[in-house]
Amino acid sequence: MSRTVYFTATTLDGFLADPDDGMDWLLTQDHDPQGALSPEAFMREVGALVMGRTTYDWVRAHMASSGEPWYYAVPTWVMTHRDADPVQGADIRFASGDIAEVHARMTEAAGGRDLWVVGGGQLAVDLARAGLLDEIRVSIAPVTLGAGRPLLPAPIDLRLTRVDRNRAFVCAWYDVAGPRA
Amino acid sequence: MSRTVYFTATTLDGFLADPDDGMDWLLTQDHDPQGALSPEAFMREVGALVMGRTTYDWVRAHMASSGEPWYYAVPTWVMTHRDADPVQGADIRFASGDIAEVHARMTEAAGGRDLWVVGGGQLAVDLARAGLLDEIRVSIAPVTLGAGRPLLPAPIDLRLTRVDRNRAFVCAWYDVAGPRA
Repeated sequence: MSRTVYFTATTLDGFLADPDDGMDWLLTQDHDPQGALSPEAFMREVGALVMGRTTYDWVRAHMASSGEPWYYAVPTWVMTHRDADPVQGADIRFASGDIAEVHARMTEAAGGRDLWVVGGGQLAVDLARAGLLDEIRVSIAPVTLGAGRPLLPAPIDLRLTRVDRNRAFVCAWYDVAGPRA
Repeated sequence: MSRTVYFTATTLDGFLADPDDGMDWLLTQDHDPQGALSPEAFMREVGALVMGRTTYDWVRAHMASSGEPWYYAVPTWVMTHRDADPVQGADIRFASGDIAEVHARMTEAAGGRDLWVVGGGQLAVDLARAGLLDEIRVSIAPVTLGAGRPLLPAPIDLRLTRVDRNRAFVCAWYDVAGPRA
C-alpha cells in the first residue's frame, strides 16, 4: 500500500529555504548520495510526487541555471492557484482545491508505490491535517538560518522510528501521529 | 579547558518553547534520564551556568508550580536588564552588558569545567557571534509547533560530531563553526 512521505532536508532550526528561497545552506554540505536518506534510493519506491508552487518554481529555476533536466520520471502534481508552464517531456499535473481528492488521484496513479511530498511545509501540513501524511523522513543540515521557509508550520506530533547519519547530516525517520490537541 | 556548550532540547522545527513559553511538548516525551544527552551527566562536567531572563523566569515558575528545588549547584549567571529576585540558597548573579566580560568571569568561576548555556536562543547567538560558543548539544523532540521561542535565531554554521538517540529524541552534537558569511 502507498505510504505518503514528506522526504526533505531542513536546517537544524527547521527551515527548508532561506528567506529568498535560497538553498546554498544545503547544496554546500557534505553527503553520500548513496547513504542514508538517499533521494535516488527513495525515488525507486515512489509512484507519484506532489509539491507546492514555490518548490516547483525553485526546481525550474534551478534547472534553468544548472542545465539539469527534470529529475522525476513519475507523475508530479503541483498545487497552485496560478497559471504555470509545464516542463517539456515531464508528466506534470497542476491542481488546486481539496487535497484529499488530489491525494486519491495520486494514489491511483502510483499503483501501490509511495507518494513523495517534495515540499513545501504548508502542503505537508495540509496533508497531515487531512490524516493523509504517513511519514516524515528528514535530513537535518548542520546550520541554522534564523528565518526562512518553515519545514512544517503547525503543531504536529510525530513518532521517531529511526535515526542515522549521512556525513554532515542527521537523518531521522518519523511516523506522523497527527495534529497536536 | 572550559568548553562553552549550549545544551538544550528543541522541537524538530527549532523551537525551545511554544509561543506562551510552554514546555508541554517536551515534558510529555519518553526519555531515559541516564541515556544520551543526560542533563544529570552533563551537570557533573559543568562549573558555571548562564541563561537569559525568559529561561530564568520559566525555571522559577516551574519550581513554584512543581515544588522542585533550584536544580543547579554551580554559580549561575542570568542575563537581564530588569530587576529580578534571586532564588534563596542558590548562587545567582544577575548581569547585563558585554557578553565577553560575563563569559570571562564565568570561565574563571568554572575553574576549568564546562560552561552550560541553558537558554535562550538569543543568548546562544550572542555568544556565537562573539566567538565564545564552542558546542551545541541538542535533543530533538518528535514534534513541531510552527511558532515559539527560536533555538538559534541567526545564520550559524555548525559541524556535526555525533548522532545518537534517547528513546523519543534524536540527539546531536555540533561544534560551532561560526556565523554564516
